[in-house]
Amino acid sequence: MAKKYVYFFGGGKAEGNEKMKELLGGKGANLAEMAGHKDLRLPVPPGFTITTEVCTYYYKHNKKYPPGLKEQVQKALKRVEQIMGRKFGDRDNPLLVSVRSGARRSMPGMMETVLNIGLTTETIPGLIKQSQGNERFVYDAYRRLLMMYSDVVMEKAAGIEPKSEELGIRRQLEKIMEETKKEKGYKNDTELTVEDLKELCKLFKNKIKEVLGREFPDDPYQQLWEGIGAVFASWQGKRAVSYRRIEGIPDNWGTACNVQTMVFGNMGNDSATGVAFTRNPGTGEKKFYGEYLINAQGEDVVAGIRTPAPINEYSKSEYNKDQLTLEKVMPKVYKELFGYQKRLERHYRDMQDIEFTIEKGRLFMLQCRIGKRNGPAAVRMALDMYRERLITKEEAIMRVSPSQLEELLHPIIDPKVEAGCKPVAKGLPAGPGGASGQIVFTAEDAVDWVKEGKKVILVREETNPEDVEGMRVAEAILTLRGGMTSHAALVARGWGKCCIVGASNLSIDLEKKELQADSKVLKEGDWLTLNGSKGNVYEGKLPMMDTTEENKLLLDFLKLTDSVKRLGIRTNADTPSDALKARQFGAEGIGLFRTEHMFYGENSEKPLYILRKMICSSTEEQRRKALEELFPYMKDDIKQTLEAMDGLPVVIRLLDPPLHEFVPRDEEKLKRLAYDLAISYEELNKKIETLHEANPMMGHRGVRLGITYPEITRNQVKAIFTAAAELIKEGKHPYPEIMIPVVCDVAELKIQKRIIEETYQEVLRKYNLKRIKYMFGTMIEIPRASFVADELAKEAEFFSFGTNDMTQMGFGFSRDDIGSFLPNYLNQGILLVDPFQTIDSKGIAELMKIGIEKGKKIRKDLEVGICGEHGGDPSSIELCHKLGLDYVSCSPFRVPIARLAAAQAVIRQK
Amino acid sequence: MAKKYVYFFGGGKAEGNEKMKELLGGKGANLAEMAGHKDLRLPVPPGFTITTEVCTYYYKHNKKYPPGLKEQVQKALKRVEQIMGRKFGDRDNPLLVSVRSGARRSMPGMMETVLNIGLTTETIPGLIKQSQGNERFVYDAYRRLLMMYSDVVMEKAAGIEPKSEELGIRRQLEKIMEETKKEKGYKNDTELTVEDLKELCKLFKNKIKEVLGREFPDDPYQQLWEGIGAVFASWQGKRAVSYRRIEGIPDNWGTACNVQTMVFGNMGNDSATGVAFTRNPGTGEKKFYGEYLINAQGEDVVAGIRTPAPINEYSKSEYNKDQLTLEKVMPKVYKELFGYQKRLERHYRDMQDIEFTIEKGRLFMLQCRIGKRNGPAAVRMALDMYRERLITKEEAIMRVSPSQLEELLHPIIDPKVEAGCKPVAKGLPAGPGGASGQIVFTAEDAVDWVKEGKKVILVREETNPEDVEGMRVAEAILTLRGGMTSHAALVARGWGKCCIVGASNLSIDLEKKELQADSKVLKEGDWLTLNGSKGNVYEGKLPMMDTTEENKLLLDFLKLTDSVKRLGIRTNADTPSDALKARQFGAEGIGLFRTEHMFYGENSEKPLYILRKMICSSTEEQRRKALEELFPYMKDDIKQTLEAMDGLPVVIRLLDPPLHEFVPRDEEKLKRLAYDLAISYEELNKKIETLHEANPMMGHRGVRLGITYPEITRNQVKAIFTAAAELIKEGKHPYPEIMIPVVCDVAELKIQKRIIEETYQEVLRKYNLKRIKYMFGTMIEIPRASFVADELAKEAEFFSFGTNDMTQMGFGFSRDDIGSFLPNYLNQGILLVDPFQTIDSKGIAELMKIGIEKGKKIRKDLEVGICGEHGGDPSSIELCHKLGLDYVSCSPFRVPIARLAAAQAVIRQK
Repeated sequence: MAKKYVYFFGGGKAEGNEKMKELLGGKGANLAEMAGHKDLRLPVPPGFTITTEVCTYYYKHNKKYPPGLKEQVQKALKRVEQIMGRKFGDRDNPLLVSVRSGARRSMPGMMETVLNIGLTTETIPGLIKQSQGNERFVYDAYRRLLMMYSDVVMEKAAGIEPKSEELGIRRQLEKIMEETKKEKGYKNDTELTVEDLKELCKLFKNKIKEVLGREFPDDPYQQLWEGIGAVFASWQGKRAVSYRRIEGIPDNWGTACNVQTMVFGNMGNDSATGVAFTRNPGTGEKKFYGEYLINAQGEDVVAGIRTPAPINEYSKSEYNKDQLTLEKVMPKVYKELFGYQKRLERHYRDMQDIEFTIEKGRLFMLQCRIGKRNGPAAVRMALDMYRERLITKEEAIMRVSPSQLEELLHPIIDPKVEAGCKPVAKGLPAGPGGASGQIVFTAEDAVDWVKEGKKVILVREETNPEDVEGMRVAEAILTLRGGMTSHAALVARGWGKCCIVGASNLSIDLEKKELQADSKVLKEGDWLTLNGSKGNVYEGKLPMMDTTEENKLLLDFLKLTDSVKRLGIRTNADTPSDALKARQFGAEGIGLFRTEHMFYGENSEKPLYILRKMICSSTEEQRRKALEELFPYMKDDIKQTLEAMDGLPVVIRLLDPPLHEFVPRDEEKLKRLAYDLAISYEELNKKIETLHEANPMMGHRGVRLGITYPEITRNQVKAIFTAAAELIKEGKHPYPEIMIPVVCDVAELKIQKRIIEETYQEVLRKYNLKRIKYMFGTMIEIPRASFVADELAKEAEFFSFGTNDMTQMGFGFSRDDIGSFLPNYLNQGILLVDPFQTIDSKGIAELMKIGIEKGKKIRKDLEVGICGEHGGDPSSIELCHKLGLDYVSCSPFRVPIARLAAAQAVIRQK
Repeated sequence: MAKKYVYFFGGGKAEGNEKMKELLGGKGANLAEMAGHKDLRLPVPPGFTITTEVCTYYYKHNKKYPPGLKEQVQKALKRVEQIMGRKFGDRDNPLLVSVRSGARRSMPGMMETVLNIGLTTETIPGLIKQSQGNERFVYDAYRRLLMMYSDVVMEKAAGIEPKSEELGIRRQLEKIMEETKKEKGYKNDTELTVEDLKELCKLFKNKIKEVLGREFPDDPYQQLWEGIGAVFASWQGKRAVSYRRIEGIPDNWGTACNVQTMVFGNMGNDSATGVAFTRNPGTGEKKFYGEYLINAQGEDVVAGIRTPAPINEYSKSEYNKDQLTLEKVMPKVYKELFGYQKRLERHYRDMQDIEFTIEKGRLFMLQCRIGKRNGPAAVRMALDMYRERLITKEEAIMRVSPSQLEELLHPIIDPKVEAGCKPVAKGLPAGPGGASGQIVFTAEDAVDWVKEGKKVILVREETNPEDVEGMRVAEAILTLRGGMTSHAALVARGWGKCCIVGASNLSIDLEKKELQADSKVLKEGDWLTLNGSKGNVYEGKLPMMDTTEENKLLLDFLKLTDSVKRLGIRTNADTPSDALKARQFGAEGIGLFRTEHMFYGENSEKPLYILRKMICSSTEEQRRKALEELFPYMKDDIKQTLEAMDGLPVVIRLLDPPLHEFVPRDEEKLKRLAYDLAISYEELNKKIETLHEANPMMGHRGVRLGITYPEITRNQVKAIFTAAAELIKEGKHPYPEIMIPVVCDVAELKIQKRIIEETYQEVLRKYNLKRIKYMFGTMIEIPRASFVADELAKEAEFFSFGTNDMTQMGFGFSRDDIGSFLPNYLNQGILLVDPFQTIDSKGIAELMKIGIEKGKKIRKDLEVGICGEHGGDPSSIELCHKLGLDYVSCSPFRVPIARLAAAQAVIRQK
């Protein structure tokens, strides 16, 4: 017997269920569940799902279907026909179907759909009969079929690439329709008469033949199979592939194909279609929320062409408050829908995104899936559902993705400033936070401008999947049409990006590159500021600020995560203010304080100057003198940060970068330095020349400096112990952990440790102290360090993985130079993730594992952390958890995200 | 019972034996063997050895001796007294002893010795009695004791550092002696009378008290124990430590201390002392060879102060041919000695270095040890002894060290040129080969000049252990005094360095920095050329050449090694001439052919110019055109080398270096290039600027170029296959192995493999061939590659470890930049070996191991080799053997050494 490739659903029964997402795709699994589960049995139009295995087979076998598929489809179609009492291709009572893609994970708008399949010159009369003589509806449906089919099946799936968008079949057919409307003086499609539509269909068919070289197929089965093929083809479509890259969806998952009875929301004013959420996806409030359109097909809602109406009072906004609610217009249907949505949420134990259609007063549930939500909504829902006992604590924690949490940490417009500003436009708040940028009108421009280092706001009539790249790089997205379920809103919500949709008082003049806001004209390149949480658009660049501190929901949620996580979360902070901020965010110490930071930031001029004197010294004597001069700056810098982290550990890394980095480049400064060092300008230049390195990343840096110039180590350590001693005298509890960077052999550690211990004793004596609590440790960032970690652990009390450098050396990727090839590597899929974003699980993680195993073998209580930038990346945090690290360290703003990721890692491991 | 710390020998018995070198040191173990082994029982002056464990204990316990030592020494001393019938410290018949160091491995002249211990004001009369009234001899002995003891025990071992050499006690006593001689008008020490010596001893004692602040001890036991302490102290002396660094001897071995009855070669003209070798250490000939001095202490021979006489006719040289041989002067003693040496060689089954003393006509054997020899001698002895069936094949192979073999590969002066040159001086041929350099007169100057990149010949009256550093860096060493057993000769022989000693017609004026050669005057900085195999010194810089090809001994010896080794030996060769040379040396293929070499060497101007055009192209079209232009050059280059290695595999590496390396720097060339590319000079500069990288070693290079510019790979591979196809058509058997460099992920290999396979098919079609034998493989040089080696092995048929880059990235050491810290690391002992010389066994070897294990797990017949420069380093070769590699690859000249090292690795592993 052939393998089962086709799963039927409908009439209160289903062969599949929700758990079969891998096989049936998310849509197919949910249709089966809705149709067949005993707690649900919702009115789903009957149909069947062709499995993802068929897609995989199809691509593996040179676009051939597996044997037996045809028969299984035929059988399932028969069952549908029986339930519906209609027959596919029948001239009297024809069954029409849709063909839709449905991958394991939702890829909104990325793949193809063809509706009204089965409509042919033969079946048209039958459909007219079914629709009680609504001839206009039928020819409109035929017109839609011609447009969709020629585009999706005959052009795209066939791999025909038009020379320009203008020459694509869809655009050509649209032009014909526009011309007809113009000729007749119509404004809207709805004004087209039956005769107009009949004529249009004829023109369409001619054009299709002319452009694509073949007739539009008049055979229902040809339509069906070509439609199925087009769905599978769309899995490898450009847009879908690009979306998968961004979302990290594997190519080999494949898509399922859902064939389902057509129901029509456009059969008249007793018909409608809509989208709803069981809770508000923008705020998380436990309120039924949705939009609908009378006399429309489902795609009209998603596409945002007409502005939809609210389903109930709660769903009303500034922008649609004058329209009638579904609750008012069809109270009985609304009540039925309301009941179904409650049932669905209870069943799925999560907020559901529902598509429904009302055909001549009869409600059909077309789809349900877990609803996308923005960060604040995700946090609120998780907390609410946990408190409602709908879900467990662990589930609540897993309901918020790190990137959703990040949204709560987004800057917002400074409220005081905003209060005094009048918006130039208002729209729907589709993505949270505030953002400023320069206006661009196309996705291509967005990409180009951002490449030049600009920040842009992408302003579009409405967005479509072709705009995805531009949307991704933009600071924010602003559309003139569409609602909370439009393409722009869906995509932005997924990314947690600031977005406003449906700002309908605006208009765009693409030729002039102008944006008209009532009487005001804004040009390309002008600055806009968006409040994506309120839907307000402001002219100019308004100041931003953070609010996270006062967000009670966030604090409550993070408390949940802390009760689960095992990893400690520290921060990378070089200044007292960063340290304080991180502490507020929940940091449990500093994982990386870079001593050299004092030579980069504010107020660095004086210490930097002294450092340069030190670097360019010719004698140890000169160097010592400069170091003494530097001492008070170093001590104060360290002291302030130790104080800010009072009671918590602070990992202080000794001087790391190659000295050449600190040397001035401009002549004037060099001349002054030469004068101060009492050497000639030429001598100084010669000296600097000797500091130059071919590969500074692997040169004279880190502990190598401390070996060559032990006085540098001595001075830095003296500053650390002195700062701590002074704090102890002030009643504080400093806890420095002294960290040696760029170590490759234990002998380096031994030599540095001796200096540190001597200096420690000196400071103790000077301050008459018995003890200063401190630890001595090493970075593990040189690959070899991992292999000698057992020896290192004999000297070091803690390890901290410097995964940035370890990635550089492990891959042989100079971070400064990857621009010339890494983008290419990611695009070609040679690397699936940027190893500087997420720790490489094959090489770098193995190095870490070796280091940890060897280190802990020698020293059981060895403290192990990570201080590279990976410490704020959720996948990397999960890896660190699995490797048994004690803590991760990340930038202050990523501390909450790290707390969440650490908790999720625990739950995932269970 | 206390541990046994003291081992007695003498009177035909011994507690120790030859196998106890670790405990008794080399000297002590051999004394015990000589004295006690039933086949030997030679006349060794009785004594005892204090073990190396005492030395280790002494340094671990703050310079205290282990309990029980005193008693054990006392007991052993008693046995010696019984055998000799004398008593230590006895006023009538006193026993005198020497105290000498003796480490596991010989460290000639590096540690201290004190002779005549036990001579006090009380025992002097007794010794006079013993010597039958030779009062002069006794006071000379006392004078020697005073000089040696004050220097070695009272000054050096006490850690007193004189402000200058002039102020050292030894030099001060020497001055007193010189003054006395001057006063009296004496030329030689021998002219000093009894009264002179008595007076000198008095003056010496006063001076000692004045300079060192304490009396010379007149107690024999104080002398003994302080002498033992001085021997242990000398283990940590500056010279000894420095020698251990160079020779790689661990600090914790410690030295033993040998206390032995004094016998005197200076008791008159019936006494003598000498050094001999059972075979000629300079040529390997099976002839008894040695030197002796009448009426002298042993140290006089080694120090090279008096010119020694030959022991027999065979030992005569140009330079001592007029002196009487021992065979003539004391025929009976010579016969006895001759018998002993035969016995010793038969017993030890190796050439022995023997020290003997004749006291009043009675022969004593003072020491025997395995004799140092130069490379040619080592090879000849190994082969001879193997043929004599004295040793096995394996032993013969182990008898020649790789560095000794290297000596045979040393260049010599072009014989045709040399034939026409008259030497300015002649001396003893103490180190093989030829060398040219500039004259320097001090070891410090040698070090300084070499740092500046110069080549020097170190010219000294005689060398001493303080000169070791200077000797090491010099191209060759030339001394005016001393024989084949002098310090310079011993050290140079050990290193296989060109060396001539005893060039007595020369004289040095250190103040003027001049070297007088008869009537000629040479200045510091003038060039000299030495023939170290003949002992000839020439003025100027003579041309050098190789002789290895015709050395039958070498060929025979290498045949032996080949019958044992498992590893294949390939060569790194980029030119047909290198390939041919390597083949003559026994290379079994090419392990690394760098395609980029054609852009560096001779005749590279044209291809380099085209390459630059390619690099600076703005379009793929331009690049393609340049590549086509480049094609014939690439193809010919590869074809010639494939032909030179006909029938053997040739690993061809695709383009490796970052493109920036090939860009011209001078303006004129840049302008011409801009003109040819039809772009402005500014545009070209901009283009070049974008190629610049911060860390090019980890930048856009290797396979990353092949990914970004697949046309480069395609073109190179086409050149390879075309070259091979043409050769096949010419009846040859080319065997290219195509190697991808800088690989970090299997996806890179897949992409390159596809290009290679396509190109392969194209070339097959074009040349109408069925098959070209080739392999596809990858370098493993990026650390990550080792971790994904299992995946790589799915695509690659061979691995070649690029240990240069792996060391760079594994250590984070940029080879271009290590100058600023690596010397420091080696001096401080942070690293014991330069990891670019010898593969690091802790980190890099582990990476290799992981790579090999993972690779072979997937592909059992995976070919694994190494192509870094480590392939010519013996320790690294041993490592490669242990790791199970198939071959190593090294420069053509190191192929013989690699063959030997590969054979030794097999034997060592057994």
